[in-house]
Amino acid sequence: MPLMRGFFSYPFSVVAVDVGGTKIAGAIVRYDDPDARPRVEGATSVPSEPERGGDAVLASMTHVVAQLMEAAPTPLAGIGCATAGVVSPRTGDIAYANGIMPGWTGQPVARHLAKRFGVQATNMSDVHAHALGEARFGAATDLESCLLVGIGTGLGGAYILKGNVIRGFNGVAGHLGHSLHHQAGNLECACGAHGHAESITSGTALVQRYQQVRPGDPIDRTCMGDEVARRAYAGEQRACETLSFCGEALGQAIGSWCNILDPQAVVLSGTVVNAGPLWREAIDRGFAQQALEPLKSTPIVEGQLGSAAPLVGAAENLLDALALSFDPVALAGE
Amino acid sequence: MPLMRGFFSYPFSVVAVDVGGTKIAGAIVRYDDPDARPRVEGATSVPSEPERGGDAVLASMTHVVAQLMEAAPTPLAGIGCATAGVVSPRTGDIAYANGIMPGWTGQPVARHLAKRFGVQATNMSDVHAHALGEARFGAATDLESCLLVGIGTGLGGAYILKGNVIRGFNGVAGHLGHSLHHQAGNLECACGAHGHAESITSGTALVQRYQQVRPGDPIDRTCMGDEVARRAYAGEQRACETLSFCGEALGQAIGSWCNILDPQAVVLSGTVVNAGPLWREAIDRGFAQQALEPLKSTPIVEGQLGSAAPLVGAAENLLDALALSFDPVALAGE
Repeated sequence: MPLMRGFFSYPFSVVAVDVGGTKIAGAIVRYDDPDARPRVEGATSVPSEPERGGDAVLASMTHVVAQLMEAAPTPLAGIGCATAGVVSPRTGDIAYANGIMPGWTGQPVARHLAKRFGVQATNMSDVHAHALGEARFGAATDLESCLLVGIGTGLGGAYILKGNVIRGFNGVAGHLGHSLHHQAGNLECACGAHGHAESITSGTALVQRYQQVRPGDPIDRTCMGDEVARRAYAGEQRACETLSFCGEALGQAIGSWCNILDPQAVVLSGTVVNAGPLWREAIDRGFAQQALEPLKSTPIVEGQLGSAAPLVGAAENLLDALALSFDPVALAGE
Repeated sequence: MPLMRGFFSYPFSVVAVDVGGTKIAGAIVRYDDPDARPRVEGATSVPSEPERGGDAVLASMTHVVAQLMEAAPTPLAGIGCATAGVVSPRTGDIAYANGIMPGWTGQPVARHLAKRFGVQATNMSDVHAHALGEARFGAATDLESCLLVGIGTGLGGAYILKGNVIRGFNGVAGHLGHSLHHQAGNLECACGAHGHAESITSGTALVQRYQQVRPGDPIDRTCMGDEVARRAYAGEQRACETLSFCGEALGQAIGSWCNILDPQAVVLSGTVVNAGPLWREAIDRGFAQQALEPLKSTPIVEGQLGSAAPLVGAAENLLDALALSFDPVALAGE
């Protein structure tokens, strides 16, 4: 449900950039026709190297944008960003980032790019952008509401209502991984608190749990469960048990979130969604245990856009800001 | 933020009725002036006696409405209902009710009243109506978003965005009590599932937990913690420990919900909110443990409208339906 696009003059393009803890990805999102879905072209990426500090990450991001600005066909609507960290819904600045990205807190991402390139720029959190992409042109298109659940290193998500992402008053909405889970007991979460769903449902948790039951057989924690899934597929019982436990715990958490939000559908995304049928069936089992009676048939589907989702969402966020005549962030030379 | 009220011709009145498991309350809600808050007048109530079955409850409700229709000053905008159970957001019928109200599921509450009295009628869940009342004229007035938490026999709530209650695709949104809690372990909830926040945070849970530590000293479970609070105030250590545990667990749950929803404020309502400073301080302590860093200063305040909230919310829901020119439910004689 794109908002009020009637007055845009097609075709046009948007420079979209997605800054994560591992890489900075960028592309040109082309809007050729009001009835066609946007095309993502000229995808490029560089390592984020967040240990170099927030200023360096912003400089790398600016460099990626500069290259795309040169390549983008005119007219250009502006720059749409999606970044790791909590993004202020009012300014597009980084309101909060954890220790994985030192010096990222406070970076005036959108304002900096708007001033540097003399075009409109917006920023939103990468998870919110991912959800917005799926809401506009992916698995959640035309749904009244949807809960996107992203399972990767951590566990994040977003609640989408009438095609828009609920960002929250502080930009924090959707931190599903940091909600309580009855099976997480007193496990410590990456955030420092205890009892969080992320501790038993994320890709990291999957690998950690597998390694606890097979301490003599270390596997790379960054594999996000691929290796565990491979071993389960090969019939290894411990791998099967781990996938089953983490999937069921995730399904229980999804049931719990649905009891709070009652979305029309749940969309699964992130690197762990390829963990296979054992994991997927466990999700359905856990969900059935926890979802209230009228919610038991809520569809749980997979995302459709993959890594293009945050870029499309970032572009859509820029267009929303332009269309709604919000001062999206800043004009050049403010 | 009442919606589009400009074309209403003041003064007018609404017959409002609130059907719970214990009593059916009704009143006339008077809108005398666009700038004044509505006045709740002529409050009346009868026992619900739900064990008599859904048809009997609907008959009692109809009787309460009939009396109020006679007393209501004209012009009358219609009938706004708030009822226990899950209410279909599309029809106002009872989509689902638990065993406490046998035969309540399927009752066409709003359609029945519209036909019977020849006026417009709407229905929404009582918890949603309570939240809508607080959003329009109580503790959540003018907030961008708010999470209402109702602590009584059970634990319910509602997320309010821009003055409107998020009902969910099936009308189930806001069942906060049926979200997971890391301290609930494998405790069985009233709904039959395990590990739910309600099991350790509701008024019922408060009394149950106190009785476990003082098995030889039974107190009435329907007191909703008043007696436990009284004993705590008198200095009884077990009562203090119980209040402290349940309050802290509730605060943790509120932190967890804020990590998902990031509301501008949290509003506490329900019969347990008078449990005293020990309970209230424990909520703040638990919240601080669980809320993510940018959310730690989210205000947690008390509701302002008390038992008038669902009646005001039910009236507002009717007016929204009229103002938005939705076919609110049905016209007489359909």
